[in-house]
Amino acid sequence: MRPSGRAADEMRAITIETGFTKHAEGSCLISFGDTRVLCTASIEERLPPWLRGKGEGWVTGEYSMLPRATHTRGSREAAKGKQSGRTQEIQRLIGRSLRAVTDLKKLGERQITLDCDVLQADGGTRTASISGAWVALRLAVQGLLDSGAIKDDPLTRRVAAVSCGIFNGTPVLDLDYAEDSNADADANFVLIEGGQIAEVQATAEGATYDEEGLLRLLRLARTGCDEIFKAQDAAVK
Amino acid sequence: MRPSGRAADEMRAITIETGFTKHAEGSCLISFGDTRVLCTASIEERLPPWLRGKGEGWVTGEYSMLPRATHTRGSREAAKGKQSGRTQEIQRLIGRSLRAVTDLKKLGERQITLDCDVLQADGGTRTASISGAWVALRLAVQGLLDSGAIKDDPLTRRVAAVSCGIFNGTPVLDLDYAEDSNADADANFVLIEGGQIAEVQATAEGATYDEEGLLRLLRLARTGCDEIFKAQDAAVK
Amino acid sequence: MRPSGRAADEMRAITIETGFTKHAEGSCLISFGDTRVLCTASIEERLPPWLRGKGEGWVTGEYSMLPRATHTRGSREAAKGKQSGRTQEIQRLIGRSLRAVTDLKKLGERQITLDCDVLQADGGTRTASISGAWVALRLAVQGLLDSGAIKDDPLTRRVAAVSCGIFNGTPVLDLDYAEDSNADADANFVLIEGGQIAEVQATAEGATYDEEGLLRLLRLARTGCDEIFKAQDAAVK
Amino acid sequence: MRPSGRAADEMRAITIETGFTKHAEGSCLISFGDTRVLCTASIEERLPPWLRGKGEGWVTGEYSMLPRATHTRGSREAAKGKQSGRTQEIQRLIGRSLRAVTDLKKLGERQITLDCDVLQADGGTRTASISGAWVALRLAVQGLLDSGAIKDDPLTRRVAAVSCGIFNGTPVLDLDYAEDSNADADANFVLIEGGQIAEVQATAEGATYDEEGLLRLLRLARTGCDEIFKAQDAAVK
Amino acid sequence: MRPSGRAADEMRAITIETGFTKHAEGSCLISFGDTRVLCTASIEERLPPWLRGKGEGWVTGEYSMLPRATHTRGSREAAKGKQSGRTQEIQRLIGRSLRAVTDLKKLGERQITLDCDVLQADGGTRTASISGAWVALRLAVQGLLDSGAIKDDPLTRRVAAVSCGIFNGTPVLDLDYAEDSNADADANFVLIEGGQIAEVQATAEGATYDEEGLLRLLRLARTGCDEIFKAQDAAVK
Amino acid sequence: MRPSGRAADEMRAITIETGFTKHAEGSCLISFGDTRVLCTASIEERLPPWLRGKGEGWVTGEYSMLPRATHTRGSREAAKGKQSGRTQEIQRLIGRSLRAVTDLKKLGERQITLDCDVLQADGGTRTASISGAWVALRLAVQGLLDSGAIKDDPLTRRVAAVSCGIFNGTPVLDLDYAEDSNADADANFVLIEGGQIAEVQATAEGATYDEEGLLRLLRLARTGCDEIFKAQDAAVK
Repeated sequence: MRPSGRAADEMRAITIETGFTKHAEGSCLISFGDTRVLCTASIEERLPPWLRGKGEGWVTGEYSMLPRATHTRGSREAAKGKQSGRTQEIQRLIGRSLRAVTDLKKLGERQITLDCDVLQADGGTRTASISGAWVALRLAVQGLLDSGAIKDDPLTRRVAAVSCGIFNGTPVLDLDYAEDSNADADANFVLIEGGQIAEVQATAEGATYDEEGLLRLLRLARTGCDEIFKAQDAAVK
Repeated sequence: MRPSGRAADEMRAITIETGFTKHAEGSCLISFGDTRVLCTASIEERLPPWLRGKGEGWVTGEYSMLPRATHTRGSREAAKGKQSGRTQEIQRLIGRSLRAVTDLKKLGERQITLDCDVLQADGGTRTASISGAWVALRLAVQGLLDSGAIKDDPLTRRVAAVSCGIFNGTPVLDLDYAEDSNADADANFVLIEGGQIAEVQATAEGATYDEEGLLRLLRLARTGCDEIFKAQDAAVK
Repeated sequence: MRPSGRAADEMRAITIETGFTKHAEGSCLISFGDTRVLCTASIEERLPPWLRGKGEGWVTGEYSMLPRATHTRGSREAAKGKQSGRTQEIQRLIGRSLRAVTDLKKLGERQITLDCDVLQADGGTRTASISGAWVALRLAVQGLLDSGAIKDDPLTRRVAAVSCGIFNGTPVLDLDYAEDSNADADANFVLIEGGQIAEVQATAEGATYDEEGLLRLLRLARTGCDEIFKAQDAAVK
Repeated sequence: MRPSGRAADEMRAITIETGFTKHAEGSCLISFGDTRVLCTASIEERLPPWLRGKGEGWVTGEYSMLPRATHTRGSREAAKGKQSGRTQEIQRLIGRSLRAVTDLKKLGERQITLDCDVLQADGGTRTASISGAWVALRLAVQGLLDSGAIKDDPLTRRVAAVSCGIFNGTPVLDLDYAEDSNADADANFVLIEGGQIAEVQATAEGATYDEEGLLRLLRLARTGCDEIFKAQDAAVK
Repeated sequence: MRPSGRAADEMRAITIETGFTKHAEGSCLISFGDTRVLCTASIEERLPPWLRGKGEGWVTGEYSMLPRATHTRGSREAAKGKQSGRTQEIQRLIGRSLRAVTDLKKLGERQITLDCDVLQADGGTRTASISGAWVALRLAVQGLLDSGAIKDDPLTRRVAAVSCGIFNGTPVLDLDYAEDSNADADANFVLIEGGQIAEVQATAEGATYDEEGLLRLLRLARTGCDEIFKAQDAAVK
Repeated sequence: MRPSGRAADEMRAITIETGFTKHAEGSCLISFGDTRVLCTASIEERLPPWLRGKGEGWVTGEYSMLPRATHTRGSREAAKGKQSGRTQEIQRLIGRSLRAVTDLKKLGERQITLDCDVLQADGGTRTASISGAWVALRLAVQGLLDSGAIKDDPLTRRVAAVSCGIFNGTPVLDLDYAEDSNADADANFVLIEGGQIAEVQATAEGATYDEEGLLRLLRLARTGCDEIFKAQDAAVK
């Protein structure tokens, strides 16, 4: 049924290679099948001016696709001189998702930037980004704990994200590009270990769905995120 | 309980003044309480180059806040030379929401742009924008039907949007600014007459919610949108 | 003679609705016939860095047209990423005109920004903007006096503006769009109560005029501004 | 009285050196005292898309100050990535002024761009620019006539510009920087040979003036422009 | 002597992993020690407008560093809205270097873009980019030959690049970051198989060098490029 | 052989007119034949924030071509809103070249900006810019010494630059536009009085050259720079 031959509730293979770059305080190359994203966490000991003096830190995200991450080459945003609305939407989502599991007071007056650069795209780049960013953030925070820079762990819960959609009338988990470009509805779920929801973005362009459809997608997302949590867990050990 | 004294499932007063500007093919000034948005629909008989030749039209949205729509003056995006990520997110949402109820083939090779300019903001500007944009679009489409430019109505369903959130632990409908800035979770629902969902954007920063919470918010949203559908209906008659 | 049937020295109907938005320290919706401009005055208690420490304040203007204020939709300056030369010219004129009647020392070290956003355009948007901005400024200054923030009134004179032009060989007052787009010459006068001139911008593209013509336009402008002064007076009482 | 010792109605020395650069179809270096502007006229045989097909040409202006044309170095507009409002105002004025004396139909479907680059500034850069631009334009048009590209001269009248102002209570002609920065009022007049007015821009910031003042400034401007017309005449012979 | 313990004429380990991304017509991940650059070649069957109709193709380069490729995080050029002068210099160099070995006529009317994205930086990113770009280009051209799209090979020579410098008074080959940031002089050589020079960029800031010094650096570069040619050869087989 | 009839090792006529503008601390108009560049040195007594507090100064360069410096008019970078890669490359080169002969510690905490604006271009604009910038810098530094602002001369050596190339198979000195646009190779040398090299930029697009070719070009450059050093010497006396 699915172009990839996967079952409706079957994730693509997840791999997480930590320490992919040597300079960042935390980094990993995360793959959801052929989607590959390089996630790095960079700690800066000072905050931008508008965040200073509140006794707490900040976690933010940036996102980009390499021009030839995609089937046909896209133009480079730096060359065009501006980031697309899509890029800005995604990087705002990455920041919010990671802040949902970070205690900013415990982090102290420092900023951690999560850069998610898509090396290869095959659907689900934003969800792979969030899932990988957690790993990079976990590694960076561990470094702060190990060095004694902070005492209490500000990151006690995991966050992961996955896309679901209705493809040929059937709810399916973890859309790849072939499905994503033909789905009737597309939803991204950002879930927290233990059953809480951090964010739902469920969109229908043309087709729509009802309450029951939304719930079926949410339940698929839980299945997927449970698998991602395990992969994250293995990666940071 | 609510700063405004409203019941948990009580909308603010909705008013829709059609024909607010004389040049646009469709226009209205929509108010959700003190939130007031001027929505205009502009028909252009040609499509941008990348949309031509497919035998169908396009519906798109633009959004802006006047600098002093808010409690303290914000800087003017035109003066800064770029639109914020928030603005771009919202205008993409307006476009998607209206396309969800428009048959682009029946529209023919023309573009309708929905400009939503917030004159005064008190929470819920994006949901008022979508709800008002439908009215402006309906009026513009009616003009095309009346003049014989198109034969079959491309807009046979209503779309409306409303925000819900968890305020002091209670799910409430149609957040105003005082609630929005202190809510534990904030969700925007774009619903279609008859029970279908066009879009859900449910966000938690810090606090989170579970499946039951999501459903309660969705049900509140239905109540709110039913009221908006009635106001839209009255306005376009 | 005139498309609108007005006499050569007849203004369009002027209406000024104060308090049009609730957040601004001063605001009005001013109409010169079908031209409608929302003017707000925003007080900020700090100056931009280059104006600090001189013991005086600043008054500045910003101007914009909503994309569909005009007969055909114009593109949004925020989306294009820059303000047109016309916009910049007009907002510089608004600032200069209001500073011509403001004692900046008496204002103290604070800035007042006059935002003039054109909701509907039918000729004369810059002159309506200046005339309405005075009302918004007057209301904002009154608030400062009432609260005791300042003691001496920095705004003791009125300023108003009106366009005149030579249409079909005849000098006429307060051009509407139908006249403006066909006038041989077009002049904007910013006048101060009591007979003084703050600014003249008289332009001929193709056709030209002589000293006598300039004087006849100036005298028409006096007639028009006297009427505007009365409307301003009624509005702020 | 005047810092320079000039009489109230005395222009600074005017020099016009034609052919200052070899590539342009017309060029001159014009000096009003220490103000020196390089003016070039460039003919392009095609129009920008929005001007094509009307059977007529276009004349446009661009203006810039070299960063160290002024007493203290200003930042380079190309490096900042945008032109100031002042620059845009001036280049729009240059274009309008030259179009006021050009018969665009006789010019044919070609564009002439007048670049006015200020090498040294000492007040009156915009008026020197307009006066020099006419010389460059005249030379370029002469080339078109000489080569037979056009038959009828599209430029049969001269245009010149000069600033006047009220300095220490006295109307004076051709303000230099020392006067300009202390004048009570400042007016730029663009006049056409034979007594017609192409443009008046008379501004008062703080101080103001009355009808009589405006007329006295206009008469000074006539005196000045008559002298410029002679210098233009000598230069193009 | 060298921080890395390498001999003066010793390159870092070179590795080239071809096919690193699946969408590009040619790709490799090239490493010079800890410097790692992802190079992709993208074929587009149409040229930009200004290159059309000459019966020949075009090869161009783009370059970027991921924000955390470096020791401390740099800001993202797409977010700042412009590319640095350094970035533009490097991407122009990449394009020129590859065009130096490409017969554009044989390539036909198509464009190949070489994207060089630095995943990790440790000195020599531009020279690794050029060396890797040749591999990506070779693979892309091979695909055109294999598919019959072109008949004659437009790429019959190899090009490679390496940096040399004077470190502690000694000419050394292939500077890493520790050397680069302390070198007295820094030179990048782009060499062509067989002894020809495509480009020399030799810079001294503070210290300088003489003719003999330049020659010694050039000879070191030959040694280095011979080694790179072998690695390229092995990679594309 | 050469279009200009010059011998292979013959420079164009060099003229340097100092004091070309009155406001700059140092200025000259330098000509290499028909190439004419206005160079000014501007002293600012404060550094940009990122250079402060190191007890030393900074020397930087900016470069621009007037739109009609060239055979056909180029668009104005300020109007396009960004500087080309070529412009940025050249202005970085100007800054590096002048810093190579300046002792920044002796300069003290001040910045000198060298603006090089090309009034007329006929090949070799970057090398004329560097050679003229040295004169402007020398004059500005002399003013600092004369006023006692600094005690020790930070500028004890001369720097000059010249282009060489291979034209019709022969190495030639000081390419003009007719040669530059047809040369097989093009090299810019920045040399320091006494035989040292500050920078070499030798480029081949299509054709290439070998070690012997590079040396022959370097020796021509020495001949040329010796002549420029003499002209600089005469100018600043």
